Amino acid sequence: MPSTTLKYPTQPYSKVNRYDTRGENQPPTNSLHTSQYSPTDHRPQASYALETIHQIVNTCPILHVSFAAPDSPFPTMLPMIGQMGSFARPSADTGDVLELYLHGYVSSRLMNLARKADDNGSAEANGLPITIGASHVDGLVLSLTPNSHSYNYRSATLFGQAVPVTDVAEKLYAMQLITEGIVRGRWAGTRVPPNGAEMQSTSVLRVSIAAGSAKVRTGMPSDDRADMEDGALLDRVWTGVVPVHYAMGEPMPSPYNRVEKVPAYLEEFRTGFNDDAVEGAVEAATKSMAAKAKKGDS
Amino acid sequence: MPSTTLKYPTQPYSKVNRYDTRGENQPPTNSLHTSQYSPTDHRPQASYALETIHQIVNTCPILHVSFAAPDSPFPTMLPMIGQMGSFARPSADTGDVLELYLHGYVSSRLMNLARKADDNGSAEANGLPITIGASHVDGLVLSLTPNSHSYNYRSATLFGQAVPVTDVAEKLYAMQLITEGIVRGRWAGTRVPPNGAEMQSTSVLRVSIAAGSAKVRTGMPSDDRADMEDGALLDRVWTGVVPVHYAMGEPMPSPYNRVEKVPAYLEEFRTGFNDDAVEGAVEAATKSMAAKAKKGDS
Repeated sequence: MPSTTLKYPTQPYSKVNRYDTRGENQPPTNSLHTSQYSPTDHRPQASYALETIHQIVNTCPILHVSFAAPDSPFPTMLPMIGQMGSFARPSADTGDVLELYLHGYVSSRLMNLARKADDNGSAEANGLPITIGASHVDGLVLSLTPNSHSYNYRSATLFGQAVPVTDVAEKLYAMQLITEGIVRGRWAGTRVPPNGAEMQSTSVLRVSIAAGSAKVRTGMPSDDRADMEDGALLDRVWTGVVPVHYAMGEPMPSPYNRVEKVPAYLEEFRTGFNDDAVEGAVEAATKSMAAKAKKGDS
Repeated sequence: MPSTTLKYPTQPYSKVNRYDTRGENQPPTNSLHTSQYSPTDHRPQASYALETIHQIVNTCPILHVSFAAPDSPFPTMLPMIGQMGSFARPSADTGDVLELYLHGYVSSRLMNLARKADDNGSAEANGLPITIGASHVDGLVLSLTPNSHSYNYRSATLFGQAVPVTDVAEKLYAMQLITEGIVRGRWAGTRVPPNGAEMQSTSVLRVSIAAGSAKVRTGMPSDDRADMEDGALLDRVWTGVVPVHYAMGEPMPSPYNRVEKVPAYLEEFRTGFNDDAVEGAVEAATKSMAAKAKKGDS
């Protein structure tokens, strides 16, 4: 872990917009959060810290990857799996400067685009420019009026240049990183390493990150003064947070499974995941914004 | 509900790519699924059915919205909240032709872009071209080798033209639709309607959908023949599905909450949500692809 908190540079395209409560011509609604009258600051916090961003990305089961599509006004959007890592160093410490390894159906189009971009000779612009979104919902934030409703959430965006991984050792590193990122211990629990055909048939993209940002909302609801002073309203409307989290159910064996007992690494992973998920959502609801800001994480 | 299954037109930019098991130069990895040697078809199913796509979008707590950013090689990516609906008709039947209403921090940039695009005079190209991604994870699909690991998942993409909603009645319709889409019964359970300042301060985008597609993977793992015939491997590696779903925990009252009992509509919503979530994930694991295909849903 680096001794200082590393941050991504703020680029015009990566700057997180938070509405200014004193601005007048700004649309005052905020991402997933519209409470503009709040006496305390319950607005989402922006962060450019590598660790915050990388953790959101690494724990997100599906990433949304977007890139310009030739001959279409609409960007392409693909669901993919990914993990932060550095094969060159090597490191997978989330506070470190890392690259993003992406796996999934990368379509001949994406692979060709990335390959072409990689061949264009410009050292700086190597690769296909892509944007990656990762979001978690941590709770429903229910206030007195619909306009101040919100989610507790963590959302990250990364911007970078994607190239196909061709080096076999690096591809193997990425495959293991991604598999372990989904179920810790699973790699060694299966038939590895992949054979030649499997290595050949697996497409992995490496994304060099140019910039990134995160937006995090935690805490309880907040309402504007007029509603807070309306006793009848307070007596009628329940306010608070409903924690939201992923849960992993009882493993269901395949028709050809012969291993009677679910392996220890899988049960440990599953129960640990479930405990952390509940705890994280409850913590998000009780965490105060002030406490978060003190961590110097923005 | 329409008597026939409505489908989105297949556009070059919306076509779902499924690898061809017989192709050789295609990257054979598949979106979140890489089992190319499967004797049975466990590949994700593509669908263009409005109902399938709209249901994935409506039940997705956070949508990822992407659009081209002027002066940046990277598309912009924003987390937003949305629901399918038609104010003009009106209808919110997921099998119907609908528009997507988006709410969230739409940034002066996005609002200005959408407004500008709306003013450009061309009736066809009205609005800002945006792409919307919605994904659900339903399970970890654990097979004999990492390469055939997968998720059970549902993923949808919509392509359309976004314009800001200016009509007050339509905006109110969209706000109610979106609030009810998150917690059924909540709109009436709060202080409504929003006052003038709230209406003014809330930004809603209406997206006219040009095309859309979905990709769904269900069922158990599948492995290639060589691994399936390896008895030692079968004796060693647990295979099956770990169901994954969202869960909503015990409601946590806000510091200013005075309503002692969690309202019935909220408890009903929460328990219904949790029951459906568990059931959905287990069903996804046990559902066979053949049964799905029979529904004529692709």
